[in-house]
Amino acid sequence: VSLFHEIHEQPEVVGRLLARRAGAIASLKKEVSRRRPAFAVIAARGSSDHAAIYAQYLLGIRNHLPVALATPSAVTLYGSRPTLANGLVLGVSQSGQSEDIVAVVAEARRQQALTVAVTNVPTSPLAGAADLVLELDAGPERAVAATKTYTAQLIAMALVSLALDAATTAEDGALDRLPDLLAAALAADDPAARLAGMRSDMTRCVVLGRGYDYATAREWALKLQELAQVLAVPYSAADFEHGPLALVEPGFDVLAVAPSGPSLPALEALLSRLHGQLGARLLTISDLPRLAAIDAGLAAPSMTLPWLGPLINIVGGQLFAYHLTRAKGLDPDNPRTISKVTITR
Amino acid sequence: VSLFHEIHEQPEVVGRLLARRAGAIASLKKEVSRRRPAFAVIAARGSSDHAAIYAQYLLGIRNHLPVALATPSAVTLYGSRPTLANGLVLGVSQSGQSEDIVAVVAEARRQQALTVAVTNVPTSPLAGAADLVLELDAGPERAVAATKTYTAQLIAMALVSLALDAATTAEDGALDRLPDLLAAALAADDPAARLAGMRSDMTRCVVLGRGYDYATAREWALKLQELAQVLAVPYSAADFEHGPLALVEPGFDVLAVAPSGPSLPALEALLSRLHGQLGARLLTISDLPRLAAIDAGLAAPSMTLPWLGPLINIVGGQLFAYHLTRAKGLDPDNPRTISKVTITR
Repeated sequence: VSLFHEIHEQPEVVGRLLARRAGAIASLKKEVSRRRPAFAVIAARGSSDHAAIYAQYLLGIRNHLPVALATPSAVTLYGSRPTLANGLVLGVSQSGQSEDIVAVVAEARRQQALTVAVTNVPTSPLAGAADLVLELDAGPERAVAATKTYTAQLIAMALVSLALDAATTAEDGALDRLPDLLAAALAADDPAARLAGMRSDMTRCVVLGRGYDYATAREWALKLQELAQVLAVPYSAADFEHGPLALVEPGFDVLAVAPSGPSLPALEALLSRLHGQLGARLLTISDLPRLAAIDAGLAAPSMTLPWLGPLINIVGGQLFAYHLTRAKGLDPDNPRTISKVTITR
Repeated sequence: VSLFHEIHEQPEVVGRLLARRAGAIASLKKEVSRRRPAFAVIAARGSSDHAAIYAQYLLGIRNHLPVALATPSAVTLYGSRPTLANGLVLGVSQSGQSEDIVAVVAEARRQQALTVAVTNVPTSPLAGAADLVLELDAGPERAVAATKTYTAQLIAMALVSLALDAATTAEDGALDRLPDLLAAALAADDPAARLAGMRSDMTRCVVLGRGYDYATAREWALKLQELAQVLAVPYSAADFEHGPLALVEPGFDVLAVAPSGPSLPALEALLSRLHGQLGARLLTISDLPRLAAIDAGLAAPSMTLPWLGPLINIVGGQLFAYHLTRAKGLDPDNPRTISKVTITR
């Protein structure tokens, strides 16, 4: 019951992290205003890498920073030392154990870049390697598949973005509403179970998203791979049209994260074409009922700020992956082959 | 016969581009030494994005530059203006038509960043938007699936890396050997046809690579999706161990680009485990016969400089995708649904 419990723990975990945001933002802001980073580099693997992709959009769009996702093997395999001195370097890892992530952060700190560890374990090697630690405080995560630490990582990235703002922005209202919106998103539990029953034959799919919710598409696909043994391939909707579209035939499963916002018009047109002309079987997550009306979908609460949407929109994806796993007769708490902490070099 | 012809045209195309490299490097070097970029941003879609991933490793490892892959929707959908003034901004597009790529380059030039268009069409909007144009000169590409323009884009990225070198490096010997090595790689045509016959039931697979050849894994997967209707999912071998590994069951197809070099030991250990313990069906591309001996594989010529390997290693992947398409009774020159130029916003 770990996974189910941890999915439902998310309003509380996010609330706890938000409650101490003032201190976290202040510590970050102090270092940011002293060092004024010209770009950001983020090192992460697995679910944490999806939080990094979210931050790539967030720090790019809200804070106008060029954001590079680190290629840790450049340091660990090729022995190269990227020039990071003027950067903000974030290492993201639930366990804080991954040696290649630690290596990037340690090298950045050696060059006197501003380094921040985003981790659930404040005594971990990653925390020890960085100048500042943003502790997730999500409680022990027992399920192999990350859920509550992923949403906590998204909050941590939002706090980094707020700390990078020149002025103090007044997003407090929207942030304070997040735990309630997460609780509302969890109301998709029953509909997700019903949809999972209707899709229990699913073995392969693509998962589309764009903009901020490209990260959500990536994370949803990973949950389906880890738990439900579905070969789920995530795409930015724009990249999907450059080739992989050729995969779609009648009955092919297309999942999409399609909230209202600037990315919706092109995505909605693509989804209508995929279903109407090519016969794809759709499953959407959206705050707009008309998306589910194309074929089938899960309702997500509306989020007025698109940059906070990924926090809410992943919940339906987690619930669907959980219920699909059970509908296929598999155990969500014991995925095949993989273990909780993976150390790569 | 377009695709087959264009695959086999690659030694000539690459030779032609290399023959005029001195001038291209000199023009780039002049601007680079004047502006001294502190980071690079690369905007691309589809196959061009895989050339961008190659450049992410190349400019990171050889030139110590932080490299961000642009998220064009930040500009086109969210109306954000990333701070690019101290950057080197590359737009990569065969046709030079993609509006979102042009938008990123135009915004960068407005901010007086150093902008370079890498395109096959010197009269295209992308070429018009940039300070400098690196023309691929690959001749018209008629096949929907990019092959010769992909290898030409890799050469273009290598020229950018050489132009960023502080000293003039003497890689001329290795570069001059590339056309012959490409011709040698094309000798895998018959073995690729035989292997395709043995794998004609393949509908899904993962494609693994690491370091420089992560780009090769991405590009190989895209060819299999576009042409052979295989749901091929590319992974960095390190990311694969963080979850997707759970997908592997006996008979599951795992493809891997596994040349000798720093990334091989961990990848070879993973492949042995995937075949020996989990029963995966392997197909490798490597210069080392022992990789094919694990299960099955294609031989690639040896490349002493790992950073030039992706140019050679993709050829076997192209040939296998071509022959698998035919073995499945499909037409490599008329993939389903997609068209040659895709314009995204």
